[in-house]
Amino acid sequence: MSRTAAALIIGNEVLTGKVQERNLAALAKVLFGVGMTLRRVVICPDEEEGIADDLNALRASHDVVFTSGGIGPTHDDVTIAAVARAFGRPQVRSPQLEDLLRNHFGGRLTERHLRMADLPEGFRLLGDEPGRWPAVIVDNVYVLPGLPEVFLMKLPLIRRSLETGSTFVSRAVYTHCDEGEIADLLEHLAVDHPRVGIGSYPVWEGRGYSLKLTFDGREQSEVDAAAEALLAALPAESLANPTLCEDS
Amino acid sequence: MSRTAAALIIGNEVLTGKVQERNLAALAKVLFGVGMTLRRVVICPDEEEGIADDLNALRASHDVVFTSGGIGPTHDDVTIAAVARAFGRPQVRSPQLEDLLRNHFGGRLTERHLRMADLPEGFRLLGDEPGRWPAVIVDNVYVLPGLPEVFLMKLPLIRRSLETGSTFVSRAVYTHCDEGEIADLLEHLAVDHPRVGIGSYPVWEGRGYSLKLTFDGREQSEVDAAAEALLAALPAESLANPTLCEDS
Repeated sequence: MSRTAAALIIGNEVLTGKVQERNLAALAKVLFGVGMTLRRVVICPDEEEGIADDLNALRASHDVVFTSGGIGPTHDDVTIAAVARAFGRPQVRSPQLEDLLRNHFGGRLTERHLRMADLPEGFRLLGDEPGRWPAVIVDNVYVLPGLPEVFLMKLPLIRRSLETGSTFVSRAVYTHCDEGEIADLLEHLAVDHPRVGIGSYPVWEGRGYSLKLTFDGREQSEVDAAAEALLAALPAESLANPTLCEDS
Repeated sequence: MSRTAAALIIGNEVLTGKVQERNLAALAKVLFGVGMTLRRVVICPDEEEGIADDLNALRASHDVVFTSGGIGPTHDDVTIAAVARAFGRPQVRSPQLEDLLRNHFGGRLTERHLRMADLPEGFRLLGDEPGRWPAVIVDNVYVLPGLPEVFLMKLPLIRRSLETGSTFVSRAVYTHCDEGEIADLLEHLAVDHPRVGIGSYPVWEGRGYSLKLTFDGREQSEVDAAAEALLAALPAESLANPTLCEDS
């Protein structure tokens, strides 16, 4: 069975449209690359109790959960408290994080800064580069900051921690087809190739193709067979150029 | 009480990182602009039963729900069937949509295209510009296509349908502060101005400021009072230039 993942994105700034969320797509690509199925994403406000409830629902039904946002010293940074509440654990101070904070802030260090070193009991830290804030892991929950520059910096570490050698294979075919004209064909392909996920994505205009078809699976041979069955069924003039490439 | 909204974003392509989701931020801005609180967003796969379950949970606990994606003629377009299932209603053919499809596709029209005119019983259509696909509404659920160009086209209509004269007011203050240094001050402001939502957003670098503080509320006077209390408490050198502006 495929390992499953969920993400909980925390932040009023996303729900009010103040910022364009940017972490999810990068995380999704990493998970796809290590063969993990991202099944569900929830975006919720900066509210401790709600975050804890969502986290408990997601971690009960997925192998791994990632949180993004709500990490910091201010009143609206409640993710760590929510994770502690979800697990029913007290917070304990991490000496490693306390050192990081003391070195970074020096004489400007406040009690509020120091609270960022308090983590739910049983935490693990991922990454120990000098001066870099590590990713925090509590059981099957990865707790990540929302600031995209910092979130993205953590992804290579996370990718390595999740790699098992299993991965997904993906192929895309670019066509000039209309969805309605090939919908029956696609349905037959989906039935004939049950272990391949077939996606159909029309584009608006101006990309040199009108419909992108994607084939995702665990086995290269199965993905190739489905993509080639499509190619064999379509007339040459309905294929865009380039037609078949590794999906990106 | 504020009217509440939720969004259900449907699509394997978002969960596998194939596309960067772009509809949510635009929808969130529209809702904020009409004074509606977007409380929750769920991103889920193209699976009819799961979509129906999510939709029922969201519509039971929010005034309005928006769906994005899964509209079209192919096997992975299951949103309409899921909405019908959620409401426990059959699908009926819309003569207006059938006309649109017949005019658009002419001799190339297939039975698959025509199925796009089948909607859950009790549907309403929003928008009747000739040749343009309208937004579909079923009770308190707005069913929108995922293609960003089409989704964004529907937003002016949706804004008008939701306007009640009530709105949110938002102000932003740009500073050179560090979050830890002013966390106590922000907490006091949050207590003193309970009807104003105060957000604190550090940026990575290179923007001419290090910390953006936002003040959201229903009343201009309350939002201004909170922002001005912050300005009065900070030394002049910690303010960026420009300091105070309407949030965008």
